[in-house]
Amino acid sequence: MAELIGAAIIGQSGGPSAVINASAYGAIRTALDSPYITKVYGAAHGIKGVLDDRLYIMDEEDPAELELLKYTPSSELGSCRYKIADPDYDDTDYQRILEIFKKYNVRYFFYNGGNDSMDTCNKISKYMMKVGYECRIMGIPKTIDNDLYGTDHCPGFASAAKYIATSLMEVYKDAYVYDTGMITVVECMGRHAGWLTAAAALATEAGAGPDLIYLPEVNFDMDDFLADVNRIYEAKGKCLVAVSEGIHYADGSFVSEAKTAATDGFGHAQLGGLASLLANTIKEKTGAKVRGIELSLLQRCAAHCASLTDIEESFMSGKTAVEEAVAGTTDKMVGFECDRTNGYECKPKLFELTSVANFEKKVPREWINEEGNGVLKPFIDYALPLIQGETKLPKENGLPRFAHLKKVIAK
Amino acid sequence: MAELIGAAIIGQSGGPSAVINASAYGAIRTALDSPYITKVYGAAHGIKGVLDDRLYIMDEEDPAELELLKYTPSSELGSCRYKIADPDYDDTDYQRILEIFKKYNVRYFFYNGGNDSMDTCNKISKYMMKVGYECRIMGIPKTIDNDLYGTDHCPGFASAAKYIATSLMEVYKDAYVYDTGMITVVECMGRHAGWLTAAAALATEAGAGPDLIYLPEVNFDMDDFLADVNRIYEAKGKCLVAVSEGIHYADGSFVSEAKTAATDGFGHAQLGGLASLLANTIKEKTGAKVRGIELSLLQRCAAHCASLTDIEESFMSGKTAVEEAVAGTTDKMVGFECDRTNGYECKPKLFELTSVANFEKKVPREWINEEGNGVLKPFIDYALPLIQGETKLPKENGLPRFAHLKKVIAK
Repeated sequence: MAELIGAAIIGQSGGPSAVINASAYGAIRTALDSPYITKVYGAAHGIKGVLDDRLYIMDEEDPAELELLKYTPSSELGSCRYKIADPDYDDTDYQRILEIFKKYNVRYFFYNGGNDSMDTCNKISKYMMKVGYECRIMGIPKTIDNDLYGTDHCPGFASAAKYIATSLMEVYKDAYVYDTGMITVVECMGRHAGWLTAAAALATEAGAGPDLIYLPEVNFDMDDFLADVNRIYEAKGKCLVAVSEGIHYADGSFVSEAKTAATDGFGHAQLGGLASLLANTIKEKTGAKVRGIELSLLQRCAAHCASLTDIEESFMSGKTAVEEAVAGTTDKMVGFECDRTNGYECKPKLFELTSVANFEKKVPREWINEEGNGVLKPFIDYALPLIQGETKLPKENGLPRFAHLKKVIAK
Repeated sequence: MAELIGAAIIGQSGGPSAVINASAYGAIRTALDSPYITKVYGAAHGIKGVLDDRLYIMDEEDPAELELLKYTPSSELGSCRYKIADPDYDDTDYQRILEIFKKYNVRYFFYNGGNDSMDTCNKISKYMMKVGYECRIMGIPKTIDNDLYGTDHCPGFASAAKYIATSLMEVYKDAYVYDTGMITVVECMGRHAGWLTAAAALATEAGAGPDLIYLPEVNFDMDDFLADVNRIYEAKGKCLVAVSEGIHYADGSFVSEAKTAATDGFGHAQLGGLASLLANTIKEKTGAKVRGIELSLLQRCAAHCASLTDIEESFMSGKTAVEEAVAGTTDKMVGFECDRTNGYECKPKLFELTSVANFEKKVPREWINEEGNGVLKPFIDYALPLIQGETKLPKENGLPRFAHLKKVIAK
């Protein structure tokens, strides 16, 4: 493969994670060190930064601050949820991207995000091939939802999983402290795939976790749910439940959007989210003391509780993307291939962008118990290696010291 | 003071904290090591364990597991919210307590909790003096609310403060990631005192925290609040707000209990709590994208993010209580006296149980800005030394390894 010399752009998009910046740092650091890459730009707010000609010059950043990206949550370059058009119908955006690529002699493009971002990356890659502009384009995956097709797991999932399991262990300790009855419902993210909620089972495995776990992979039934909760509550006087935000009835309608007579007879949509809705429904039926807790944004940005394994793998995916591109690879996503037969080994693996974009990987049905209210050992064996190791996030005055970038705009 | 030989009981009560067990461990360890204390019992669920004759024999525990109490959240002996009667009206409970004290030759009683617990401790102390039963009784403070009178601060506050500030820094990073508008409201605990919510200002001081902070020490005005939020949002396109669950209108009614037309025209009480209510009111008025986050139980049990200073001081308060009691002191609470003039120094200080019970210490008005929407430097100077240092909580398989006690019941 011919040597390709030119600038690189790195962009981030989609929802934040605790380690998406670790991936970006893997790409930025490796690109800065590459003799083939003449300049490294960070796109402000993903592809919108390219369209708007807002590129940060990474070469101008203090190397020590850049390194702190390994421990800084959220997308430091800024994110977007911009849905790029199908180029067969409207190639305006693509023409503009090409214009910017030519302006800065961009020959390497790295896009760091989830499902939609891989779709964007794929479309840009195919367009550049079609118009014959030589540019090596690589996807660097990220999603706490862990739903990207092909790869063993996604950077970001493990840190959110570690936070969820840790928090559930602590909530368990808290919820079990009184000798009076208590039912606690904890809502985890995951609209279509239950990976994050399943991570609550790691707390149970550690001896202090939920009694019941409900994922969107199984149709939800309110009567079964109430019977399950009541059975545990009658036996133990307590019940801790983890539910995915995406649980839905057999007809596909989200439980979170249901209007239940128990909570508001006038049919208003619930304001407090799923955890409140379920807690109120349980209270209505059992009379027990209940509490609903939504982990909300905390679960996707808790860098202070990140998995070191996740940080290192995220860095590796960004680094590999640049190394592979410089060596001649294009139009691929850098995922992982893992071997758990004898300990745990994780290696980067390339996937066709076409094959990963817009597919969703769900928790296998056989990893969920028959009743659909718990997670089985294969999931534990899958997830446990991923949450190992503690972040080395430095502290200043007892609080996290995150990266401060200068973000010098390219002219 | 005459030597007093006999057994000790340690009980915990009130809401959990990340470090109440560190205090209990300080007392238990010191009592186990004391030649004057013949046996050490842990009361199951506070004073209810004494009334029910359910005492755990601490001498039977593995010392290494006991030591893990320093890092284990919530009240490991179990808590209660039992309100003991006024002995002048009904001394049934006190007679029973005396009976149990005599049964086990209890000569030392340590009670670990907040306001109500100090009241319980005080009443038992005064009763035992009245009936002439020699028993040294000491209060060991705990409350994340930091509202105990006299002491510089309360064990438990700092760890919750550290968690709140850390989480707000992370939420700030997350909330600022898109280039579209976003208003985020985070609700912290604190029904009558704003100490915990004020801790959010530590995040702002560190460069990534809330723009606005509302405490119950200042009457809340919805119009002023909406104007404040809108002003920041217009200027920055974002706004991060921290509110105390206890904010109230000038007439004393809690904002969380208000029925606003914006949220439910039929006057139903809100289900989703204060954060949801405010987020929805803002959305109604500004049309901005909003998110309400309730830190809920997480903030009081997040042992993984505990302050080492808090852990060590909590241990010290328990240890001092036993040392003082053995030396002859009784009827006191072990609080703290701190010197911040040259660094930070914290020493135990004894307070009369009568003086601390049932008083509430609030954030001084002069530590809050004139507008009542922010916290000033004196608070930062007060709180910052308290959150220093990281917990040494051991991990097992990537998750917290909390104490496992055998809890052998005394016959």
